[in-house]
Amino acid sequence: MAVDLSPGPEVADLAERTAKFVRDVVIPVEEEHKGVVHSDDVRRQLQQAAKDAGVFAPHVSAEYGGHGLDMRGRAAVFEEAGYSLLGPLALNIAAPDEGNMHMLEAIASDEQKERYLRPLATGEIRSCFAMTEPAPGAGSDPGALATLAERVEDGWRITGRKWFITGAEGAGFTICMARTSGEPGHTGGATMFLVDADNPGMKVVRHIDTLDESLFGGHIELDFDGCVVPEDAVLGEVDEGFRYAQVRLGPARMTHCMRWLGIARRAQDIAVARAAERELFGSRLGDLGMVQQMIADNEIDIAASRGLILQACWELDRGGHASQETAIAKTFCAEAIWRVVDRAVQICGSLGISGDVLLGRFLREVRPFRIYDGPSETHRWAIARRVLRRQSKAVR
Amino acid sequence: MAVDLSPGPEVADLAERTAKFVRDVVIPVEEEHKGVVHSDDVRRQLQQAAKDAGVFAPHVSAEYGGHGLDMRGRAAVFEEAGYSLLGPLALNIAAPDEGNMHMLEAIASDEQKERYLRPLATGEIRSCFAMTEPAPGAGSDPGALATLAERVEDGWRITGRKWFITGAEGAGFTICMARTSGEPGHTGGATMFLVDADNPGMKVVRHIDTLDESLFGGHIELDFDGCVVPEDAVLGEVDEGFRYAQVRLGPARMTHCMRWLGIARRAQDIAVARAAERELFGSRLGDLGMVQQMIADNEIDIAASRGLILQACWELDRGGHASQETAIAKTFCAEAIWRVVDRAVQICGSLGISGDVLLGRFLREVRPFRIYDGPSETHRWAIARRVLRRQSKAVR
Amino acid sequence: MAVDLSPGPEVADLAERTAKFVRDVVIPVEEEHKGVVHSDDVRRQLQQAAKDAGVFAPHVSAEYGGHGLDMRGRAAVFEEAGYSLLGPLALNIAAPDEGNMHMLEAIASDEQKERYLRPLATGEIRSCFAMTEPAPGAGSDPGALATLAERVEDGWRITGRKWFITGAEGAGFTICMARTSGEPGHTGGATMFLVDADNPGMKVVRHIDTLDESLFGGHIELDFDGCVVPEDAVLGEVDEGFRYAQVRLGPARMTHCMRWLGIARRAQDIAVARAAERELFGSRLGDLGMVQQMIADNEIDIAASRGLILQACWELDRGGHASQETAIAKTFCAEAIWRVVDRAVQICGSLGISGDVLLGRFLREVRPFRIYDGPSETHRWAIARRVLRRQSKAVR
Amino acid sequence: MAVDLSPGPEVADLAERTAKFVRDVVIPVEEEHKGVVHSDDVRRQLQQAAKDAGVFAPHVSAEYGGHGLDMRGRAAVFEEAGYSLLGPLALNIAAPDEGNMHMLEAIASDEQKERYLRPLATGEIRSCFAMTEPAPGAGSDPGALATLAERVEDGWRITGRKWFITGAEGAGFTICMARTSGEPGHTGGATMFLVDADNPGMKVVRHIDTLDESLFGGHIELDFDGCVVPEDAVLGEVDEGFRYAQVRLGPARMTHCMRWLGIARRAQDIAVARAAERELFGSRLGDLGMVQQMIADNEIDIAASRGLILQACWELDRGGHASQETAIAKTFCAEAIWRVVDRAVQICGSLGISGDVLLGRFLREVRPFRIYDGPSETHRWAIARRVLRRQSKAVR
Repeated sequence: MAVDLSPGPEVADLAERTAKFVRDVVIPVEEEHKGVVHSDDVRRQLQQAAKDAGVFAPHVSAEYGGHGLDMRGRAAVFEEAGYSLLGPLALNIAAPDEGNMHMLEAIASDEQKERYLRPLATGEIRSCFAMTEPAPGAGSDPGALATLAERVEDGWRITGRKWFITGAEGAGFTICMARTSGEPGHTGGATMFLVDADNPGMKVVRHIDTLDESLFGGHIELDFDGCVVPEDAVLGEVDEGFRYAQVRLGPARMTHCMRWLGIARRAQDIAVARAAERELFGSRLGDLGMVQQMIADNEIDIAASRGLILQACWELDRGGHASQETAIAKTFCAEAIWRVVDRAVQICGSLGISGDVLLGRFLREVRPFRIYDGPSETHRWAIARRVLRRQSKAVR
Repeated sequence: MAVDLSPGPEVADLAERTAKFVRDVVIPVEEEHKGVVHSDDVRRQLQQAAKDAGVFAPHVSAEYGGHGLDMRGRAAVFEEAGYSLLGPLALNIAAPDEGNMHMLEAIASDEQKERYLRPLATGEIRSCFAMTEPAPGAGSDPGALATLAERVEDGWRITGRKWFITGAEGAGFTICMARTSGEPGHTGGATMFLVDADNPGMKVVRHIDTLDESLFGGHIELDFDGCVVPEDAVLGEVDEGFRYAQVRLGPARMTHCMRWLGIARRAQDIAVARAAERELFGSRLGDLGMVQQMIADNEIDIAASRGLILQACWELDRGGHASQETAIAKTFCAEAIWRVVDRAVQICGSLGISGDVLLGRFLREVRPFRIYDGPSETHRWAIARRVLRRQSKAVR
Repeated sequence: MAVDLSPGPEVADLAERTAKFVRDVVIPVEEEHKGVVHSDDVRRQLQQAAKDAGVFAPHVSAEYGGHGLDMRGRAAVFEEAGYSLLGPLALNIAAPDEGNMHMLEAIASDEQKERYLRPLATGEIRSCFAMTEPAPGAGSDPGALATLAERVEDGWRITGRKWFITGAEGAGFTICMARTSGEPGHTGGATMFLVDADNPGMKVVRHIDTLDESLFGGHIELDFDGCVVPEDAVLGEVDEGFRYAQVRLGPARMTHCMRWLGIARRAQDIAVARAAERELFGSRLGDLGMVQQMIADNEIDIAASRGLILQACWELDRGGHASQETAIAKTFCAEAIWRVVDRAVQICGSLGISGDVLLGRFLREVRPFRIYDGPSETHRWAIARRVLRRQSKAVR
Repeated sequence: MAVDLSPGPEVADLAERTAKFVRDVVIPVEEEHKGVVHSDDVRRQLQQAAKDAGVFAPHVSAEYGGHGLDMRGRAAVFEEAGYSLLGPLALNIAAPDEGNMHMLEAIASDEQKERYLRPLATGEIRSCFAMTEPAPGAGSDPGALATLAERVEDGWRITGRKWFITGAEGAGFTICMARTSGEPGHTGGATMFLVDADNPGMKVVRHIDTLDESLFGGHIELDFDGCVVPEDAVLGEVDEGFRYAQVRLGPARMTHCMRWLGIARRAQDIAVARAAERELFGSRLGDLGMVQQMIADNEIDIAASRGLILQACWELDRGGHASQETAIAKTFCAEAIWRVVDRAVQICGSLGISGDVLLGRFLREVRPFRIYDGPSETHRWAIARRVLRRQSKAVR
C-alpha cells in the first residue's frame, strides 16, 4: 500500500545464498584465473556447482528450470552474482545469454522455445545477439542497420557484417538482426533471425582485441555472406525487430547495471580492507581524510545506483517500457561504477594497479559499459529529448 | 511482499493536491515577493489557504490537525510543497518548525504538547531550535557544545551564545540545547530546554546577513545571559539531549532534502521551458548537445536524489536510526540539488542570473544546504568511518 | 631567447605597489561597503588615492596618463588589483571602461580620442558598451544583432533594445553596436556608434536585478528609440563593427580573467586563514584531509588559470587574434575561479555563507562570468570547431 | 625582460625534428607492436634511428653526446617524443633512465660518470632506481624506508625488498636507496648505492603483472639479500640519499608529465580524426554538442597542463626546488592526461576500446601515473601544508 524496499523473504533468501555461493565457490576460481575464463569446462563446472547450490538460472521461469524472478528480484540476486566476474557465468545470467533468454521467453514460438530456450536455460549451449555493425552501420543509432535479409524460396538470405558480437565464439546459435524493409538511415523494418552455429553462411572473421576480456566467448566480428535460413528462423514477426530490440534492451541494460554494481561493491570491499590495515605517514590509510572521501563517495555512488536500478525495475515490472528510467539508471550506473572502481584503485595505490588484486582487471572490464548498451552521450540526448517533448506537450 | 515504489493512493492524492495548490496559490505569491517573505500576515494568509485546500500540516498526527504522514509519505508531499520557496511555509512544514513538531510529538510531555506543539501545529506560533554556536562551540562537532545550564532553585540557568538560529525572530518559543554535564570537547550530557519568547534572559543579538534569505524569521544570533527556566521546561530527560538531537536530526535532514528537491525540479522546469522556446545560432536551445547534456544530468540528479531519500525514509519508518542512509542521502542531495540549480542558471544564460526568473534566488537559497545539517565533509567522514568499522568487525 | 615567465622588474614593481595599495587603501573601503559601491564620490576618492599611489590606469598609454602595459603586464597588475572587488574601480581598469579604452586607443579618430578617451582614461567620466540584446537578438550569437542604424540626413538613426549593459547608469557615453547591413541571423555588417549620455533617443528602461551587484553602474536595459547621431559618431569604419568587437573581445576576456583571478586568490586566502586557526573535532581545520584537498585544488586551479592567461596574453602581444587561446583561458578561468570561491565558502562553513566574510558576495559576483563574455558552452563549441577544422585541413 | 613563451629557435627546431622522427619512424614500429616493446633489438634499432636523425639524448650534456637541454627545453622536446609510447625509448629519455642520467650528472664522481653515465647516455646499457618498497616500507612516505645498508669491511651490505622497480629486468645497474641511519618511520639518513647487475646479492623476485605494460624492462620486485657493494658504490655522500632523491624527484616528475602530455595529444588527435569523419544520426560525430564538449575539454586540459609544466620548469631552471610548482603540475597533469585519454576513448566508442586503435592501451599506460611519483592525494596534502605554513608565517 505504500513504498516498500524490502525484496521479500524468498528473494532475500536467494540473494543471500547467491552471495555465499559466490564467496565460497566462485571467487576461488576467479582468483585462480585472474578473472578471465574462456574454458567451457570451467564454465560447466561452475554452472553445475550453482545448480547444486540451488542458485542457478534465477531469472528463467520454473518451466525452464529457473526461479522466475521479476526485474526487482533480479536486482537483488544479480548484484550478488556480480560480486565476482565469474558469478554471472556460474548462474547462467551473463550477457548476452541472459537477455536472450528474457527475449525468447517473451517472443519465441513454442517450438523455438524448445529448440533454443530450453538448452540455453540449462547451460547446455550458449548464444549471442548480432546487432552492432561497423560504421556506418548500426551502433548508437539502430536505424543505420545495414545488414540485409532478402526473401528467397522457403526462407531468407542474410548478408552483412556484424562486430562486437559478445559470446559469438562457441555459441550454439545467433540471434541476428537484419533489415527487411526500408533504407539504412531510415528506421524501416528489421527482423530477428535465429541462425544455427553450423550455418555455413555465417563466419567468425576475427576476435576483436578489446580492453575488457572477461565476457565469455569474446567480442567477435561476424560475416554473413549469403547466409540462408528457413522461414521458421524468424523470431516473432517480420519487420518487428526494432520493437523486440526495445523489449530486450530495457531489461538488458538493467541487468548489466546489476551485475556491474556487484563488481563496484567488490572493488569497494577490497579498497576498504586495504584502508583498514595499511599504515601511511604514521596513520592508518583509512584515517586519512582524502581516503575517507573516496570511501564515502563510493558508498554514495553504490547506494544511488541501487536506488535508480530499483526505480527502473519497478517501472518495468509494472509493464512499462521505462525508457526514461532505464536510460537514467544506465547512464548513472555506468559512470558511477567506473568511478567506484577507479577510486578503489587509487586507494590501493601501487597494489591497485598490480595483478596482486583484481582492481586493474575490474577497471578494464567496466570501462566499456559506458559505451555499450548505448553510450552515455546517446542516453543523455534521449533523456533530454523526452523531457523537452514533455514540456512542449505541457505548453500546448 | 516485494519492492513497491508507489506511495499508495492516499499519499498520491495528497501529493497531487499539494502540487496543484502550490502552482495555483503559492507561486503567484512567491513571484510577487521574489521568493522572500518575512511578513507574518502573508504567512497566515498562505497557511489559511492551505487549510482551505486540505493540504495543511501533512506531517502532524490527526490529533493535532494533520495528515499523519510517515517519512515515505512526507517524501512525496514535501517535494511537491518544496516546488516553491514558500510552499513549505504555507503547509507549515518549513524548517525548523517541522522538525520541532516531529521531535515534540516524540518526546514532549502531554502538558508540553498542549502548550507548545498544538499552537505550533496550527500555525498560531512559530518556533526555533538553538543548537549551533560560534566557533569553538557546537557546529559540525556537537560535542563542542559550550552553552551551559546549571541547576538553580526550582529550575535551570542557561548561559551561552547561539548563532544561525533559523526562525528565531518572532518565534513563540525556542528549544535550546545546553550542556548539563561533561566538558566541551567531551560528549558528556546535554539537555533540551523549552524557552518562551518573552524570557528576559534570551536576547536577539543580530540578524546574520546570509547568502540565503528565504527561511522565515532569518538566521539569528541569540544570547542566553542568565536565562532562568523552570523545571518543566526540560524537554524529555536531563542529559539526553544529544540522543534527542539524533532523533530530530535524521528526519530533519531528509525533510530538507525533500523540500529542496522540489526547488531543483522547479529550476529544471524553468530551464527546460526556456530551452524549448529559445533560439540560438539558428537552433532551438534545447537542440544543442551541451544544453541537452545539462538537462539530462539534471534529470539524473533529481531521480538519484529521490531514490536515496526513499531508501533513508524507508529505514527511518522501519524504526532504525538510518544514520548511514540519511548521511548518504543528505550528502548526495545537497550537492545534486546545487548542481541542478547551477545548470539551470547556465541554460538560461543572462536571464538565469537576472531577477526576471528566480534561479539566482534559488542558487543563493540552496548553497548553504551543503553546510547546514552537517557539511558534506563531516558526513563523508562519518560515512567512511562506519564502513571501516564494519570492515574491522568483519575481520575479527 | 627562451621561455621566461618573469614579468620584468618594472611590471613586478607596479604589481607589488598595486598589491600594497589594494591591501592598505582599497580593502578597508570594500569591507565597509560589503563589496558593493555605486557612489560616484567613493569612486572618485578611490581613484584619487590610486593616482596618489602611482598605480592608476596601468593599461592606458603614457599619452593618456597611464603606464602603457601590454597584455602580459596587465596579467600581473590586474590580478593584484582584482584582489578586492573595488580594486579595478580604483585603478580605472574595471569593466567595461577598461575594454572601451583599449578599443578607443586602437580604433578611434584623434578627435574622438580627445573627446571620449581622454576623460575616460582620467576617470572624469565612465562609459558603457551596448552590444547584448534580449532574445532573440544578439547574445551568445552576435550575428543575431537586431538593433538597426539607418542613414538619415547628416547621420544615423539607431533603433533597438539592449540589455545587460554594464555601467550604463551614469555613463558619459555609450558605444552602441547596431546593424547597418544584412539581416538578423546573417552576419552582415554592424557599426559601432558613440552615443552621448544626453542623447534624448537613448533611455534607461530599468536596472536589471542580477545575482551580481558590484559592477559600477549596474546592468541596465536601454532603449534606443529614434536615437539620432551625427556622422562623426561612427567609431572606425561603417560595417566593421563585428571585426572591432573581436578586437575588443579577446583582450576584454583576458582582463576579466585577470581581475577575477585576484578574487579567487582572495577567497583562498580567507579560507586558508580560517583553516589555519579554526579547531574542529580536536584538530585544526587545516589538518583535516578533505579541507587540505580543497585548499590544494584551489592552488592548482589558481596556478592553471594563471598559466592559461599568460599563454593567451603572449599570443595577443605577438599580434595574433588568439581566438583559441583566449577561448580556452576564458572557459577554464571562469569555471576554476567559481570552483575556488565555492570551495572557500565550504571551508569556512556557516561563516562562509554569512556576511561576516565576503565569500558569499564573491560567489554571487563570479557566477555570471561563466555566462558573460561568451558562455562556457559557446566557447567549447568554438574551440572544438577550430580543432576539427584544423584536422580537416590536415587531411586535405 | 618580460614574459616570453617561445622556446627559442634551436629548441623549436629540435622539437620539430623530433615530431617528424616520431611520426615517420617511431609510430610505425609502435603500431606494429601495439605499443609494447620489450625486445632489446628493437630498442637498439630505434635508438640508432634517433641518433641518425640527430634527436637522440636531448637532455644529456654535449660531453656525453646529448643536446644539453634545460628543463624548459625538455618540455618542448619530450612532449613531441611522448607522442608515441615508444618515442621516449627511441630518444633514450624514458623513465627511469632519463631521471638517473639527470641525477648522475649532478651527483656522481667523475669515475662513476665514466662507468655508469657514459654507457647509459649512449644507450649501451639501461638502469633502474630502486626506491619503492612493499608496505609497510617506503612508498608515498619515503621516511618509511626499511631496506638497510650496514657497513662491512671495505664497503656496505644491503638487505631489503624493493618492488615496482621499473626497468630492472636487463638493467646494467641499479641505484638502490637504503637506510644508513635512523629507524623506519623517522626520516633519518639514507644513502644511494650503485649496484651492478651481476651482483649476486641482488635478485629479481618476479615481474609484477601491472595494468600498464609499456615501460621497458617492466615493473620488478627485487630482493637484496646480503648484497655487498664496495665503498665507491656510494653515490654522492652517505646519509644524503633523501636529499638527492628530491633532486631527482622534481625534474623526474616533470619529464613524466611532458612525455604523457604527448600521449594525451596523440589520443586527442585520434579522437578528433574520428569525430571529423564518422557519421551518426545523420550528423558528423564532430558536429554533436556533447562530442564537441569532450574535444574542447581535451584542448583545455592539454593547454593547462602545458602551462603548469612551463611554470615548474622555469622555477627548476632558476635553481629552485620548485616543490610546490612541481607538485601542482604533477597532480594536475596526471589527472588531466587521464581525462583526455578517457574522453578520447569515449568519443571513439566501441572502436576506442578495441585494439584497432591504441586508446585502450594508452588508458592502461597513463592510469598508474596518478599513483607513481607521488599519488595525487599525497601531493595535495603537501601542497596544502605548504600553503598553511605560509599563512602561519604571515600571521606571525
